[in-house]
Amino acid sequence: MKFGGTSVADLERIRRVARLVNAEREAGHQVAVVVSAMAGKTNELVAWTDGAGPAGQGLASSDSEYDVVVASGEQVTAGLLAMTLRNMGVPARSWMGWQVPLIADDAHGRARIDEIPPEKLAAAMDSGEVAVIAGFQGVTRDGRIATLGRGGSDTSAVAIAAAVGAACDIYTDVDGVYTTDPRIESRARKLAKISYEEMLEMASLGAKVLQTRSVELAMAYHVPVRVLSSFVEPGEAPGQGTIVCDEEEIVEKRIVSGVAYSRDEAKISLFGLPDHPGVSSNIFGALADANVNVDMIVQSHARTADTANMEFTVGKRDAARAVEIVRAAQSSIGFEDVQVNEDVAKVSVIGVGMRSHTGVAKTMFQALADKGVNIQVISTSEIKISVLIDAAYTELAVRALHAAYELEKL
Amino acid sequence: MKFGGTSVADLERIRRVARLVNAEREAGHQVAVVVSAMAGKTNELVAWTDGAGPAGQGLASSDSEYDVVVASGEQVTAGLLAMTLRNMGVPARSWMGWQVPLIADDAHGRARIDEIPPEKLAAAMDSGEVAVIAGFQGVTRDGRIATLGRGGSDTSAVAIAAAVGAACDIYTDVDGVYTTDPRIESRARKLAKISYEEMLEMASLGAKVLQTRSVELAMAYHVPVRVLSSFVEPGEAPGQGTIVCDEEEIVEKRIVSGVAYSRDEAKISLFGLPDHPGVSSNIFGALADANVNVDMIVQSHARTADTANMEFTVGKRDAARAVEIVRAAQSSIGFEDVQVNEDVAKVSVIGVGMRSHTGVAKTMFQALADKGVNIQVISTSEIKISVLIDAAYTELAVRALHAAYELEKL
Repeated sequence: MKFGGTSVADLERIRRVARLVNAEREAGHQVAVVVSAMAGKTNELVAWTDGAGPAGQGLASSDSEYDVVVASGEQVTAGLLAMTLRNMGVPARSWMGWQVPLIADDAHGRARIDEIPPEKLAAAMDSGEVAVIAGFQGVTRDGRIATLGRGGSDTSAVAIAAAVGAACDIYTDVDGVYTTDPRIESRARKLAKISYEEMLEMASLGAKVLQTRSVELAMAYHVPVRVLSSFVEPGEAPGQGTIVCDEEEIVEKRIVSGVAYSRDEAKISLFGLPDHPGVSSNIFGALADANVNVDMIVQSHARTADTANMEFTVGKRDAARAVEIVRAAQSSIGFEDVQVNEDVAKVSVIGVGMRSHTGVAKTMFQALADKGVNIQVISTSEIKISVLIDAAYTELAVRALHAAYELEKL
Repeated sequence: MKFGGTSVADLERIRRVARLVNAEREAGHQVAVVVSAMAGKTNELVAWTDGAGPAGQGLASSDSEYDVVVASGEQVTAGLLAMTLRNMGVPARSWMGWQVPLIADDAHGRARIDEIPPEKLAAAMDSGEVAVIAGFQGVTRDGRIATLGRGGSDTSAVAIAAAVGAACDIYTDVDGVYTTDPRIESRARKLAKISYEEMLEMASLGAKVLQTRSVELAMAYHVPVRVLSSFVEPGEAPGQGTIVCDEEEIVEKRIVSGVAYSRDEAKISLFGLPDHPGVSSNIFGALADANVNVDMIVQSHARTADTANMEFTVGKRDAARAVEIVRAAQSSIGFEDVQVNEDVAKVSVIGVGMRSHTGVAKTMFQALADKGVNIQVISTSEIKISVLIDAAYTELAVRALHAAYELEKL
């Protein structure tokens, strides 16, 4: 069982979590619980590290001491939940990353899990004790605290489940995975099941319900994951939620499973590029060297000139840095002008059915055209189509696509 | 170097601490720094454990999970100070109790230090790195977090100093140890030196400047301790403070070194006790079994009756429990009535000179009598005399005693 920050935001909610844990235990299950920091705590801690560390947004997070400070948030929640369980008569103890141990590499602030020897946890759970594990944190091989990056508690939970051979229930503030954001489209439907592949695309394309890396990990180790709500009253069951599983386990196949959107990207346009080989490599090589992730890319040629234009998207927080980097390389790349547009949104349709069905793209482009939504950039994969549009049209586009694929009928 | 909660209360103060650390380093010293939680943080964490743990003031602290929660405060400060130092170009890293390791017993919430293998810390310091150590915390032999009780960071600091063979500078919000509390007596004088024995009495009799256990430890291992202020401006030196050392190192002996006071006690009076052997043992045995510390004790006999009265003091927070315990044993003890008085203060004069000089008690009682202060209970040791008085007379008594021993002339 994994509980996020809003589910453990105060002592009353921690008591609610304790009741859910106890219900699982009374249903005959051995339980390990992974917890996030109380909502707001991580932000407070990160703000302190920003003040103490090197100047510049986010730079502090590469310092190993960032991890020492920020990991304390999950430590507090784990201790409080274990106390609450004990106080209800449920045997429990907390486990920090270094106690499990959840061994991670030393890429501080965004470490990856190397290994989780399951023996200690398994022994504690076999003895009837609930294991309350601080999420988001591990320990490096030389004994330092390492954190897994934002949202890392989902990843901790799936990894722990894989290590001890368990299923993983992710409790959050929604009761499952929806065809799209219900705050935008009230006719959004909760999905009973969704494949790992689709969930992965949904997560990386903007759906906040699960962290991308946790889904990758679940897929790699075939960990059955369920998304369900922690916001239930005493005595009430948390419902069935949404099961994330292998595609083969989903009987009723859908062509499109969901519509996702993200406003976290910025579009960078380079104009007047020389039209010869090596230009793209110059641009994206420089960005890759600086660890800037580039998402969508489109190159266009002016009809009457021998120059080209290049448009690509990066995360909004990387936009200023990306512009600096290309400007610094202006002479070697050889462009005339660079512009940034932060008023863009990426809207995507996702579905494994695209593999076998044609016409999905046509339906998408038609639906957007009917509403007068201009498409700036397109990118596709085997099971998704994404378009970059003017951010002002986000809600309109999401609703139009939800209707076009009749997702309200799921 | 040890810095308490008010010295690291925010990022600006942490930067001031970093400058003091760097100055020591530039003076050619290897430095280990022990830090407390940022002022107010421990209280916040303790309040959460009170809400999560068993009902009843302070009961939560015996839970091993209390330590997990509360130890996070020092972890945050240690990480932030290490970051700040690195950002100033000073090599530094943080050390949690489990990383040092500072091995403690499993008396959670009030653990005692068993052992500090110095190898890892010494190697880091030899490499030129400042070791920033989270105070107040250790690790049990089975790998759980244990805290040393309130004020435990002083104890951590002295223990670390003993382990690595260093002197221990305790930085606090005052610039040394005074003959009495300067907020009460403006003519209080800062002591250049004070013996371990006197400091121990001062600390246990109410002076808040050092934690009692840290002084015991310093005395046992002959760790030179200095108390000085962290509240200095950039470029300013922290002054000489007060040196706590062996009595032999103090050339100018004083008869009385200081006047301490405490309002943390309550007086419990038992009336109409049977006057036969075993009564005291009944009363104080029951209290000891319940871990209630009794301080001053006086027994009196009514001139005309064959019954006795007994008065004793306990910590204010233990008073209600102490009354419950004696009430529960009323039939076996056999007293008629019990009363509690929380409006009492203990005022003490301390000085190693009492060993060789007579008349110290006489001067004390005369000074108090001159001001009309009634003495309720008296207790003495080789180097101190304490009296229990009406709390309303505390300041008056402190000033009268300070004048009577001419401490302003030190």
